Amino acid sequence: MTVTGEFYFDFVSPYAYLAWRRLDQLCEEHNLRLEPRPVLLAGILGHWGQLGPAEIPAKRRFFIKDVLRWAAEYEFTMRFPDPHPFNPLGALRVTLAAGSHMALQNEIIDALFTTAWRNGRHLSDAAVLKDILDETVDLDDDLVARSQSPPIKEALREQTDEAIERGVFGVPTIRVDGELFWGNDRLGHLERFLEGNDDWDRDAYREALSSDGVTR
Amino acid sequence: MTVTGEFYFDFVSPYAYLAWRRLDQLCEEHNLRLEPRPVLLAGILGHWGQLGPAEIPAKRRFFIKDVLRWAAEYEFTMRFPDPHPFNPLGALRVTLAAGSHMALQNEIIDALFTTAWRNGRHLSDAAVLKDILDETVDLDDDLVARSQSPPIKEALREQTDEAIERGVFGVPTIRVDGELFWGNDRLGHLERFLEGNDDWDRDAYREALSSDGVTR
Repeated sequence: MTVTGEFYFDFVSPYAYLAWRRLDQLCEEHNLRLEPRPVLLAGILGHWGQLGPAEIPAKRRFFIKDVLRWAAEYEFTMRFPDPHPFNPLGALRVTLAAGSHMALQNEIIDALFTTAWRNGRHLSDAAVLKDILDETVDLDDDLVARSQSPPIKEALREQTDEAIERGVFGVPTIRVDGELFWGNDRLGHLERFLEGNDDWDRDAYREALSSDGVTR
Repeated sequence: MTVTGEFYFDFVSPYAYLAWRRLDQLCEEHNLRLEPRPVLLAGILGHWGQLGPAEIPAKRRFFIKDVLRWAAEYEFTMRFPDPHPFNPLGALRVTLAAGSHMALQNEIIDALFTTAWRNGRHLSDAAVLKDILDETVDLDDDLVARSQSPPIKEALREQTDEAIERGVFGVPTIRVDGELFWGNDRLGHLERFLEGNDDWDRDAYREALSSDGVTR
């Protein structure tokens, strides 16, 4: 039986890229079908009052090394886009505009992620996006132009809001059966869940949730 | 040859507890000697303008489950202290007051961590701390009373400031040879480092650091 879920991501996140590169195999092994859901990480962080790792100087140094350590472990070549963080709005909207064709959408997501995180090129400009699409997919319509229409802009806002309502606070987040798995480093937990081996202590969870959590 | 380093922690963090429980074996296998450094996580988060995971409603739910999933994976019994977060100042100061005796200090850290995260008891009150010390260590001085002296309070502030200067932005953080490993979930990276197998892409790191990182 195929299990379905969502993959919430933003191109600005190298951890989302790491997860993206690993998900094909994981989905195949576990008969999982994930629908890609582009969301604006900056909107999500802003909603919850959080900073991104690149916004805290000490964390930024750790974060860059950490990403490159994961890349080394998985034997991926990675480069940070210059500049990073870049403005991902255009890339997210192009992905949404292609959304009616699932296969095409996957190809576009892959091309955009690869351009940013393997080739080290930012995705901020419409011209860059047009280049990438020209090089990688054979399109009959001008996706970049279409992605700048009000309905697509609105769709990205709605999708980001929906993610927030569902408890998403960062990317990548994979949601299956209402369970959230946040971070490339939690794909192991997702796999245990898919294997029916997610046997943590439910009583301790309920107890902790009902504790008022005030400092005293 | 013995490698030395520091283990920055706060009792309020369940991830610090998870790391503490796993570090004995890791240190033995890799001939690593870690000096425990109690620090006030709230001070570190405040300095960098971050929120703790328990302060963001959606993240708190994820965080509790996540901790219990790690506990299940390691086959540890864990319970959240009630309430959580609790005020850890007294517990951190007691640990510092015992600092002149390394063996005793380790025993006290272990007793405090166990009380909070296995028995689910908060560590906010001097009376609770006195109980724990009476039950677990044989002391000739009143450590709880001594821990409330101005020099101990000042020592905790200094140690927290030193951690911040060294780039610590969360706990647990393990520092070896100036390298920081943040989180129970990065002990794998620490092990690769100790095995001389920390071969990530230095050029990509320098490139990313020198990128100005502004959104454009």
